[in-house]
Amino acid sequence: MKENSALLTDMYQLTMLQGYYEQSMEEIAVFEFFVRKLPKTRAYLLAVGLEQVLAYLEQLHFAPEEIEWLDGTRLIKPAILDRLAALRFTGDVHAMPEGTAFFPNEPVLRITAPLPEAQLIESRLINLMHFQTLIASKASRSVLLAENKLLVDFGMRRAHGGEAALLAARASYLAGFDGSATVAAGMSFGIPVYGTMAHSFVQTHNQESQAFEHFALANPDNVVLLIDTYDTERAAQKIVDLAPALEAEGIKIKGVRLDSGDLADHAKKVRALLDRGGLQDTTIFASGSIDEYQLAGLIAQKAPIDGFGIGTHLDTSADAPYLDCAYKLQEYAGIARRKRSEGKATWPGRKQVYRHYHDNGGMSFDTVTVADASCSGQPLLQLIMQGGKVIAPQPRLLEIREYTRNQLHGLPVALRKLSDAPDYPVVISSELKALAKQVDEQTL
Amino acid sequence: MKENSALLTDMYQLTMLQGYYEQSMEEIAVFEFFVRKLPKTRAYLLAVGLEQVLAYLEQLHFAPEEIEWLDGTRLIKPAILDRLAALRFTGDVHAMPEGTAFFPNEPVLRITAPLPEAQLIESRLINLMHFQTLIASKASRSVLLAENKLLVDFGMRRAHGGEAALLAARASYLAGFDGSATVAAGMSFGIPVYGTMAHSFVQTHNQESQAFEHFALANPDNVVLLIDTYDTERAAQKIVDLAPALEAEGIKIKGVRLDSGDLADHAKKVRALLDRGGLQDTTIFASGSIDEYQLAGLIAQKAPIDGFGIGTHLDTSADAPYLDCAYKLQEYAGIARRKRSEGKATWPGRKQVYRHYHDNGGMSFDTVTVADASCSGQPLLQLIMQGGKVIAPQPRLLEIREYTRNQLHGLPVALRKLSDAPDYPVVISSELKALAKQVDEQTL
Repeated sequence: MKENSALLTDMYQLTMLQGYYEQSMEEIAVFEFFVRKLPKTRAYLLAVGLEQVLAYLEQLHFAPEEIEWLDGTRLIKPAILDRLAALRFTGDVHAMPEGTAFFPNEPVLRITAPLPEAQLIESRLINLMHFQTLIASKASRSVLLAENKLLVDFGMRRAHGGEAALLAARASYLAGFDGSATVAAGMSFGIPVYGTMAHSFVQTHNQESQAFEHFALANPDNVVLLIDTYDTERAAQKIVDLAPALEAEGIKIKGVRLDSGDLADHAKKVRALLDRGGLQDTTIFASGSIDEYQLAGLIAQKAPIDGFGIGTHLDTSADAPYLDCAYKLQEYAGIARRKRSEGKATWPGRKQVYRHYHDNGGMSFDTVTVADASCSGQPLLQLIMQGGKVIAPQPRLLEIREYTRNQLHGLPVALRKLSDAPDYPVVISSELKALAKQVDEQTL
Repeated sequence: MKENSALLTDMYQLTMLQGYYEQSMEEIAVFEFFVRKLPKTRAYLLAVGLEQVLAYLEQLHFAPEEIEWLDGTRLIKPAILDRLAALRFTGDVHAMPEGTAFFPNEPVLRITAPLPEAQLIESRLINLMHFQTLIASKASRSVLLAENKLLVDFGMRRAHGGEAALLAARASYLAGFDGSATVAAGMSFGIPVYGTMAHSFVQTHNQESQAFEHFALANPDNVVLLIDTYDTERAAQKIVDLAPALEAEGIKIKGVRLDSGDLADHAKKVRALLDRGGLQDTTIFASGSIDEYQLAGLIAQKAPIDGFGIGTHLDTSADAPYLDCAYKLQEYAGIARRKRSEGKATWPGRKQVYRHYHDNGGMSFDTVTVADASCSGQPLLQLIMQGGKVIAPQPRLLEIREYTRNQLHGLPVALRKLSDAPDYPVVISSELKALAKQVDEQTL
C-alpha cells in the first residue's frame, strides 16, 4: 500500500461520493480542521503537518489497480468508478503556518474545493494533521523546560508504526528537539541523527571495559558509552580508567549514558567520579521512560545531566494519546452550515483567526470571526495552495523550527505549566455568533 | 521512504554494527522479544505482528541510495558501508503463532542470527510487534464483552499515521472485530470494509430527509443513515416516514447510526420509534468516543444497540498507549547473557514457554524454562523461519482470527475483568533460575 494511496480513507467517504456524484452535488464546499477542546494536560497546541497534507493533495489519485479492487467489492457503481479514476484535488488550502500555536475552536486549515474532493480527503488529512500536532505539542513541553539541554527523540520502537516514527522525529525536531535516533528521519527530512550503544553491545563482550574500548575504536568521533548494564558507578570508574589509553590514540570520551535507576542520584555520583578522574568534559546523557514530568523533577533536583533521550512517552504522547479534533463542513454552495449534534456543535462558515499581541510582543488574545469580516490583529490563516497547486515555496524545516521557537517564546508564561494552566482567551466575534444563529434558523 | 527501509532503525544499531564488524564479532546471537510487565488495565496480551516481521526480514537490505546517504553522514566508515550493502537476514525465527495469549517475561519471538543481523533489526521488529500486540489486545477486550454485536474499527483518522491505521485494522480484525472503515485495509488484507455516511452529507442538503433519500438511492444495498446531525429522535421519525417510498423502490433501510449524546437513552427512544413505524429489522449502530468501558456500560443498561464503531480509543489504545516491551540479547557465541540494570533485569539464555491446561481445555498456568529443558505442557514457540526463509505456508488471516477466538475463550474467566484482574500464573523453572545465577557469577 503506497503511503498516500487514495484508499487510505474511510469507506463512508466513497459511499457519500456515490451520492454526491449521482445528485450532481459538485459545488464548492468549505471544510475546516480544528480542535474542539484541549486534553487536560495541554494549554496550547502547535499546528504541524501541513507539508505532508500538501504532498498528499498534490498527488491525490486512484491508481488503476485500486479502481479495479473497488470494482470487485461491488460497493461502488461502475459510473462512479469512472469519476473516481478521474478525480484530482483542484481546490484551495488556507492554513496557519506550521509551528503556529493555536487553541480550541480555531480553524487551523481550511479546504475550499468541489464537494467530492473536499470530502474524500477528510480521513487522511485528519490522520496527518492530528498526529504531528499531537507530537509537536507534546515535545514543546520538554523544550520549554530544558532549552539548554540536548533533547533527542528516542521513540521509534514504540511509535505506532513506521510512519509515526518518522513523523514524530519531524514534529519533535520542529518543536525544538535537537534530533532523533531514527536514521530514516535523517535521510527523509535532514534531521540530525544521534546514536550511542545498547546493552547488547556490552553483553556480547565478556568484559564491560572491553566493550567500551571496542566501541570507542569503532566510533572515535562519537564515543558515548552506556554504563548501566551491570553497575552504573563501577562502569563510570572503568571509563575513567580507560580514558588515558584512548586519549593516547587521540580518542575523547564524549559522554556516558544512564538508562535505569534513580537518574538524579546516579548522575551526581557519576559526575563526581568523572570529574575526579579528569573527565570534566565528558557529558552525561540520560534516557529510560523520561517525559516532561520526570524532566521537571530532574531539573528541580539539579541533576547534572546534559542531555535526554525521550522516547516512548513522546512518540505516543502517552499522557494524551489523541486530540479531540475534527474536519467539518462549514459552507456548501455559498451557504454556511453547521452540525448541532449534542456536545459537538461547530461554528459555521469560513473563518479567520486574528491574533492580538502585548506591546512586548507576547500573545494577548485571539479572535475567531467570519473570513470576510474586518478585524484588528494578525490573521493566522494564509492561502497556501490554489487550484491544487502550492502557490509559493514553502519554508524549510529549519525555518519552521525557528518560527516555532518564536511562537513558544510568545506564549503567556502561565501556559508553560505542565497541568492546570489557565485558558488562553479566544473570543468568538459577534459576526460569527450572528451567523450561527442565522444558520440554525434556516436548517429544518 | 519505503515502509521497510533498512534505515528505519535507531542510529545506535549502526554504530554498534561498526564495532561488531571491526572486531569480527559475527557469531550467532540470540535475542528475544517479550513484555516486562502489563499495563494496569491489561490482564493478558495477544501476540500479533509476526507476518509483518517476516516480510520485513525477508526483504531486508540497504538500497544503494541509502548507502550513499549514510556515506554522506561520515558516521559510518567506508569498509563498514560495504558490509552493510551486502547484509541480508540469514537467521532463524521462533515465535508464538499470531493471536496467542501471552504474559510478562514470556518470550514471544526469538531471533537466532549472526550478531550484526540480529542487532540491526531490533528497532523495526519492536516497532511492528509492539503496535499490533497493543491494538489486538485492546480490541479483544471489546470482543469478549460484545461477541454477538457488530464491531467495526473506526479509528483511521486518529491512528498515529497511515501504517498505524492499516495495522490497527488488521490487529483488531484478527482479535475478533468484524471489519474496518479503512478502505486500504480491505485491499491490503482482505478485511471486510464498512461505511455509512458523515454529518457533512446531511449538512450539504437543505433538508435532512432529502439527504437520507439521496444516500439510499446511491447505496441501495447499504443504507445506514446517520441521525444525530440536528435532533436524533426527529431524524428517526423522518426515517420511518421515508421508508415506504424507499420500499416501493425495493430499498430497505438497513440501519441508523447514533454518534453523540446519551447513546443508551437515544437508542431506546429510536428503537421504539422504529418499531412503532414497522422498521423492526432496521438495526441501530453507535459510534462516538466508544471504548470497552463505555461498551460495558451500554450493555449493562441493555441499550438496544446492534453494533459499534470503535475508533480513537482502539487505534491509539488510549488507556494504555504503549507496552513495556523489549528485545534483549540472551546468548552470544554459545554463552547465555543477561543485563542486570535496575528494574530491568532479564532471564538469560534461549527459552521456551510451556502452557498447561485444565481438563476442560481452559488455560491453567505457563512455565518459562531454558529451550532445551524437558517440560510437560504445550510448547508455544515454534520454528517459523530458517536461514532467512519462511519454512512453511503461514496461516491466513481468517485462520489466525479463528485461532485467536479459541485463545480468548481459553483464558481464565477472571482475566476478562477490565481492570484489577488477578495475575495469570507464570512459573520460572528451576533450570532457568540456575542459569541466571550462573550467568551472574561469570559476568565481571
